[in-house]
Amino acid sequence: MKKNIGPRTVGFPTPVVLVGTTDGEGRPNLVTLAWVGICCSEPPAVQVSLRPSRYSHAAIVGRGAFSVCVPSKRYMDQTDFCGIASGRSCDKFAAAGLTVESGPELGLPLVAEFPVCLECRLLHTFTVGSHDLFVGEIVSCSAEESVLDARGRLDPNALEALVYMPGDGYYDLGPRLGSSFEVGKRLMPHE
Amino acid sequence: MKKNIGPRTVGFPTPVVLVGTTDGEGRPNLVTLAWVGICCSEPPAVQVSLRPSRYSHAAIVGRGAFSVCVPSKRYMDQTDFCGIASGRSCDKFAAAGLTVESGPELGLPLVAEFPVCLECRLLHTFTVGSHDLFVGEIVSCSAEESVLDARGRLDPNALEALVYMPGDGYYDLGPRLGSSFEVGKRLMPHE
Repeated sequence: MKKNIGPRTVGFPTPVVLVGTTDGEGRPNLVTLAWVGICCSEPPAVQVSLRPSRYSHAAIVGRGAFSVCVPSKRYMDQTDFCGIASGRSCDKFAAAGLTVESGPELGLPLVAEFPVCLECRLLHTFTVGSHDLFVGEIVSCSAEESVLDARGRLDPNALEALVYMPGDGYYDLGPRLGSSFEVGKRLMPHE
Repeated sequence: MKKNIGPRTVGFPTPVVLVGTTDGEGRPNLVTLAWVGICCSEPPAVQVSLRPSRYSHAAIVGRGAFSVCVPSKRYMDQTDFCGIASGRSCDKFAAAGLTVESGPELGLPLVAEFPVCLECRLLHTFTVGSHDLFVGEIVSCSAEESVLDARGRLDPNALEALVYMPGDGYYDLGPRLGSSFEVGKRLMPHE
């Protein structure tokens, strides 16, 4: 029997990504977000949610696009920093020692040091409460050669992925336990 | 310099949860989803996205609510199974050997064997493409005593959390690497 500890946003691991934008003067900026998730397969789309007070909010609306830059674990400090500092008062790329790379489809700022970055075209903006939910169609996925396998597909083990537990901190990705759409077949009723 | 491998929904770890509903005849059902993410802090809210063809889609709309049941890694097979089988043709709770527990606020089906389950009241339904995005306000968080610390807060290390890599499979949560809103302070410019 479980105990009700009240409504809260904890309980499962989430992604942690740096969302890249350019402001009205074309300056690249980053904001770290964990209120993020894939939300559609066709077209491939991702939701990122943030408070209207964040500097990146107006930049996403203004540009009608954003990037999703996926850090490897060695960039944990930079990831955390970009969630604490504000682009209003500092150049986060410079302060974090990260390099801007231009996205192939929309020219959005990507982080050169990170293994994977997505470019997203803003499809929808929905107000939920404290946060607005942006849905972006993924139009490119740029990956370092070092994280692609022999068939040119992303190798999850090569990402050195960072996992986030809300209200707590950052975790390493542990060992692979099993294949999706496979291990569950063991429980399929026999016809 | 990165290589553009085209738009796709891969690149970062995601949650993997079982969404619980009751159908028009009151029968409890579960569906496994990874297109899920927290999307608001006040009120606490979560987005879950699924295809209209899924049996649970009509159940979420009909009931105006859903639960989010978070598996521990020992339930990987059951988690995968509930993403393969359909509630139209089988009782997934029975087939997976899982026990229904009733949620404290909305009476939604929770999985007794799982460490954490949320109940959510449907706030919004947005059509994105192949998937509809449901936003649910989290109204309760039910946790096993075994995953609560001495102060009654969720202990992430006790969850034995399961992490998902889209297009690949299930992973263990690895070691804790650092505290959020803390490790990034090392990079703060000195005033």
